[in-house]
Amino acid sequence: MKNIALNSILNNNKSEHFFKGGFGFEKENVRVNLKGELSQKPHPLKFGNKRKHPYITTDFSESQIELITPVRKSIEEALGFLETLHDEVSMNLEDELLWPQSVPPVLPENDNEIPLAEFDDEGADLRKYREHLSEKYGRKKQLLSGIHFNISFDEELLKLIFESSDNTVLSFKPFREQVYLKTLRNFKRYRWFLLTLLGNSSVVHKSYNNNCVIELPEFGEDAAGVGHQISIRNSMCGYRNIKPLFLNYDSLENYKLSLKENIDSGLINYEKENYSSIRLKSSNPKEDLTHLEVRILDLNPLEKIGINIEHVKIIHLFLIFCLFKEEVNTFDKDTQSVALENHEQSTSNSSLSSAIITNDEGEQWPLQTAIEDLFKEIKQSISTILPSNYKTTMQVLEQLVHKENERPGAKVLAHYKEHSFIDWNLLQAQKHLELSMLTNYKFFGLEDMELSTQLLLREAVMRGVEIDIMDRSENFVKLFNPKKTEYVMQATRTSLDNYVSVLLMENKVMTKKVLLEHNISTPEGKEYYDKEEAFNDYKYFENKAVVIKPKSTNFGIGITILKENNNKQQFLRAIDIAFEHDNTILIEKFISGNEYRMFVIKDEVVGVLNRVPANVKGDGKLSIEELVVEKNKNPLRGKGYRTPLEKIALGEAEQMFLGTQGLDFTDVPAKSEIVYLRENSNISTGGDSLDFTDDIHPSYKNIAIKASRALNVNITGLDMMIDDISSEATKDNYSIIEMNFNPAIHIHCHPFKGTNRKLNHKILDALGFFIEF
Amino acid sequence: MKNIALNSILNNNKSEHFFKGGFGFEKENVRVNLKGELSQKPHPLKFGNKRKHPYITTDFSESQIELITPVRKSIEEALGFLETLHDEVSMNLEDELLWPQSVPPVLPENDNEIPLAEFDDEGADLRKYREHLSEKYGRKKQLLSGIHFNISFDEELLKLIFESSDNTVLSFKPFREQVYLKTLRNFKRYRWFLLTLLGNSSVVHKSYNNNCVIELPEFGEDAAGVGHQISIRNSMCGYRNIKPLFLNYDSLENYKLSLKENIDSGLINYEKENYSSIRLKSSNPKEDLTHLEVRILDLNPLEKIGINIEHVKIIHLFLIFCLFKEEVNTFDKDTQSVALENHEQSTSNSSLSSAIITNDEGEQWPLQTAIEDLFKEIKQSISTILPSNYKTTMQVLEQLVHKENERPGAKVLAHYKEHSFIDWNLLQAQKHLELSMLTNYKFFGLEDMELSTQLLLREAVMRGVEIDIMDRSENFVKLFNPKKTEYVMQATRTSLDNYVSVLLMENKVMTKKVLLEHNISTPEGKEYYDKEEAFNDYKYFENKAVVIKPKSTNFGIGITILKENNNKQQFLRAIDIAFEHDNTILIEKFISGNEYRMFVIKDEVVGVLNRVPANVKGDGKLSIEELVVEKNKNPLRGKGYRTPLEKIALGEAEQMFLGTQGLDFTDVPAKSEIVYLRENSNISTGGDSLDFTDDIHPSYKNIAIKASRALNVNITGLDMMIDDISSEATKDNYSIIEMNFNPAIHIHCHPFKGTNRKLNHKILDALGFFIEF
Repeated sequence: MKNIALNSILNNNKSEHFFKGGFGFEKENVRVNLKGELSQKPHPLKFGNKRKHPYITTDFSESQIELITPVRKSIEEALGFLETLHDEVSMNLEDELLWPQSVPPVLPENDNEIPLAEFDDEGADLRKYREHLSEKYGRKKQLLSGIHFNISFDEELLKLIFESSDNTVLSFKPFREQVYLKTLRNFKRYRWFLLTLLGNSSVVHKSYNNNCVIELPEFGEDAAGVGHQISIRNSMCGYRNIKPLFLNYDSLENYKLSLKENIDSGLINYEKENYSSIRLKSSNPKEDLTHLEVRILDLNPLEKIGINIEHVKIIHLFLIFCLFKEEVNTFDKDTQSVALENHEQSTSNSSLSSAIITNDEGEQWPLQTAIEDLFKEIKQSISTILPSNYKTTMQVLEQLVHKENERPGAKVLAHYKEHSFIDWNLLQAQKHLELSMLTNYKFFGLEDMELSTQLLLREAVMRGVEIDIMDRSENFVKLFNPKKTEYVMQATRTSLDNYVSVLLMENKVMTKKVLLEHNISTPEGKEYYDKEEAFNDYKYFENKAVVIKPKSTNFGIGITILKENNNKQQFLRAIDIAFEHDNTILIEKFISGNEYRMFVIKDEVVGVLNRVPANVKGDGKLSIEELVVEKNKNPLRGKGYRTPLEKIALGEAEQMFLGTQGLDFTDVPAKSEIVYLRENSNISTGGDSLDFTDDIHPSYKNIAIKASRALNVNITGLDMMIDDISSEATKDNYSIIEMNFNPAIHIHCHPFKGTNRKLNHKILDALGFFIEF
Repeated sequence: MKNIALNSILNNNKSEHFFKGGFGFEKENVRVNLKGELSQKPHPLKFGNKRKHPYITTDFSESQIELITPVRKSIEEALGFLETLHDEVSMNLEDELLWPQSVPPVLPENDNEIPLAEFDDEGADLRKYREHLSEKYGRKKQLLSGIHFNISFDEELLKLIFESSDNTVLSFKPFREQVYLKTLRNFKRYRWFLLTLLGNSSVVHKSYNNNCVIELPEFGEDAAGVGHQISIRNSMCGYRNIKPLFLNYDSLENYKLSLKENIDSGLINYEKENYSSIRLKSSNPKEDLTHLEVRILDLNPLEKIGINIEHVKIIHLFLIFCLFKEEVNTFDKDTQSVALENHEQSTSNSSLSSAIITNDEGEQWPLQTAIEDLFKEIKQSISTILPSNYKTTMQVLEQLVHKENERPGAKVLAHYKEHSFIDWNLLQAQKHLELSMLTNYKFFGLEDMELSTQLLLREAVMRGVEIDIMDRSENFVKLFNPKKTEYVMQATRTSLDNYVSVLLMENKVMTKKVLLEHNISTPEGKEYYDKEEAFNDYKYFENKAVVIKPKSTNFGIGITILKENNNKQQFLRAIDIAFEHDNTILIEKFISGNEYRMFVIKDEVVGVLNRVPANVKGDGKLSIEELVVEKNKNPLRGKGYRTPLEKIALGEAEQMFLGTQGLDFTDVPAKSEIVYLRENSNISTGGDSLDFTDDIHPSYKNIAIKASRALNVNITGLDMMIDDISSEATKDNYSIIEMNFNPAIHIHCHPFKGTNRKLNHKILDALGFFIEF
């Protein structure tokens, strides 16, 4: 091992790329009832089989939900995945909340009343393991919940560095091992730094009458604690091995041997019983080591999902520091003991000012001095390679270092002056749930993707379907579980449809021809390839209301509507305009009525929507401008297509359109009067989406299904002009305008008025992805 | 009936649109062996069941092939369909030819040796009918073959005219009937005009020893005839009822009644035994009358398909004349008798100068005078509405009117001075077959469509699949038979593939990712969304041969190849260039080897092709320019993608590329030396396509199939770089560049070197369209 000049190789190759890598989280929250008592209800059925679900399971207790993210290429994406899981799980609980604290809520007196996680027959071992823990550590201690942060370095970078070094003795594998081991050793040496800054379990509820914490002073009406920020979860009273485990971290092989020795000696019974602050882990059955698992993070009840992204990034940059930091001593039992003593000082000292850190040279310093010194070293060490998106992180860290009151644990403690422990945490839990509901259309970390795709992915993870964002900018994803794989683009472009049916929909002339062959009404008309021919046909269209348009049109470009076609010059001009946009044009009968979007999935109309232009409804008091401001307060309204609806603008277009009605922004509409601010009904310009799925006469749905069958399509957004949705369809009172092969689903899930039609669920059903029980 | 002022309504609405309508052909040719004897072989098996095939059947005799086109919207398209059928049928005969004459070839002495058409059990009636004809008319007469021209008027125009007339008494249906009946009556009145100009069966072979023609003088060594142009087929010795049929043409109802009377009286036995020069027909079971059938056309042995398009258009404009021409008398038995007498004069008079025509006023005029007079009237009648594409037709007609020698029958007669009847017609048949083979990639009348589509349609009609050109400019067609319907775009975009698999192929990043997941080699590399990031990765690609390209690229735009990537500035510039064309770029390892197009259909590699740049092979004598001229004589080489290969140009690009080799057009390459004239290998710039389907190591085919399965595609054109096709594939000696979702098929059907891989057959097989037996 001495042959690798690890420090010099690494330091000669310091690179921003070290901040790349893989990231993942595991988070536990116990479920509580609305009184803050540990839930006695089973793990909710809608989360499927806890043994099979890749993301939602239970930890030790049946009431202790564990959320697991897959590996992601950025912290943002991994944390977004966790947030999405958290929100969905929160919203799917019934009269229960996710407890936002690492330390437990109101617990039953008797340890046996804490339910162990239940498993099916194939999960017998898992049950047995929990029984073992229950006996060895007591059930209450096992309820301490936290967040584990998994991280790997950029493999390509490691390879590149390895190849560019002049080392010839060693192969890549042990080099890579040493990179991880060195980081781990330094992390263990200096973990007191993070524990001090981020420790966040300063108080326990009375019912957590553990032998150790029973000696803590009373705190408020229902809790116990020393009164300043500590981490009980990380302390000797927390989630720890019975006796300290001193392992060999020289090499992976030695590490494994030392773990085995401790099992043989009976100190622990399983490898996973190594309750260390950081562990070597593997997520790949073919490799012994794929990443590090950082286990020190307490839940932060100030944050909806229990964690602040900047705090994660602080841990990340701390790990990078550990990677480069030269080791001054061997990491033997003595060194590990010093590190452990520093850990104890930082997590459980009854007075902050009396805590003492022993440094690498054996010198002892007050904790705060040590903190500030190490911060300086960290800052200097990685300043040259700090990526731009870590500048804020460094500032946040600097605050935490210098201002004790800014540390999250201290902030939480401040709240207990006004509320009891249980009350405040319940309030927080409730507040977090409300926040979750406000953004229930988002997939966090993927907010740049289309809302339809975000909605589909939300439901996919709920069903335990794994997702791979294959081409993010194209909204192209892979969905898979052990049984099947499906690729999906833009939520609705799937393997369910055959290629030629899509081409039929894409080509409006083809759509019409096929529908006509099946006696389905479409706007009557003719296609022209030749200007002369179209001119000559004036007599066929004279005195009829017509639409003249290019064959393939989008957003109405090149279209002219002649409601009274009695001016030949106008007719010819309209033909000229249409031919400017395509080499084929259509002259069609003008169709009156309202346009309805009918969403069909596999012979079922699953949503019917009418879009109306941006508008406000008067109350006799507020001006148009004020009504717009009010209406825009709806949280579904946002800007730039990041929300299901768009805010109504108060711009030139709106002013002009009001002008045509003799109105301006200051006018006060009468009570119940509806004033339109735009002519077009696009949602993107503030239009409203109104759901009519249950209100439309069933005959129109039958026509939509017939049309879908005619083109042999499974997913389509069919646009139909209808005179009156309450009367039965006849040959003449409807007309299909077009059939869209990639219709949006979010407008049906979050309409301005109406029910969430859950098209994301229905598309996953159609694709054959169901939750496993 | 008197209530319709038909003449004035029509003449007030004279319109070019009368030249629109529906058109179709039926054509008979007897099969002969290479000695010119009537074939005794059964109808070829590969033409399927003659009772079920919509286009290829037999008429009276088993050896009398009948080709039927569907209705088409232009004469060009209908005739093109006929030509395509004719070519395919000719090429699919074995040691037989299609007899190019209306009058039969060498016939067996005994009438019974002329085989009647054989049918399966369900065709018993058809067989019975032929036995009846055989007894009534004799088999030899039934072998007289011709072309029937079916025509309908533009229905929309008829409706428009009807609606704009102030007639209130009549409904549209009888109005429309009268339009057709008037045309028919005038056609019958003046048919002598067409018979004189186009009659083309002046001579019969000796073996046609019919009672009537036996009185004809001998003609040449093996024939009989009067020695100038007549139409024996149309004459009283030809294909005629036993006694003249005088029917009532006042209304459709009366017409049907009179037909029935003639059946009751025993003059004819079936409606279809009405051997008139023109008939009322219906192709729609719901309507009594859909079109007119003109039956006077003899086969023209000077034309490959037995007919000249201008002659068809002459008939067409003659019909339009008949539509407008005011009737001067009622079309009673007397009028019909006069018309019949004129018919006889024009088809069988033994001396042209003695033929006499009786006009509407009962005056008699020499035939040629009558011809010239009627021509003047025709020309005047329709001159104002003659469409531009009928100007030539009118000129051709004028020639035929004034110059007897220009008439097709006269031209044919001239050839018998040098050859016997049988010899000359055999020579013509052989010549036509060779012509057919020269253009065996075309679908005539649809030559503006892609060659791949033309090839697919050719084989479709051979299989009896009906075709509907839905969107001609998009190459979008409908294929159907009684069992199934398929829509196909550009020959290879079909229902066989699912939509998302096509999207995977379309997106090169996705294709690569999916292939990599299946351990299939693709060019190693990375994608970048960000310029900075790509710049920073220079170290990963330093000193390696790389390709830098936009994610979605076509025709090589935005691509840079850096074979020795050791100049950072060049690298950065290449990245800039790529980002000018897409917001995502790829940096890939440069792959050496040759590129092969592998065409996969349903888990089978059906074609492997290598394209090489335009080149000539020296003979030590000719200059590069002369070699190009020689090579361009290959009939597969054309201009503008209308042929499977393109002519090599002798332009600036070629000159420049020769220049880089120190050559110019006048240099004479050594024997067997290959000189390239372009760098790129596109077929469109004169490149050669070389078939390697049978030469490639099977391991590459297996990889192509594996790749197709990975993307779940049924039709793909996969481009693979291969070091050496003769050695087995390893992990490193091949790489898949891309998979195309609409690969051309014609390059595999008509390669420069190699076998026709019949991909049109294979796609129809895959779609489930087989010939019916």
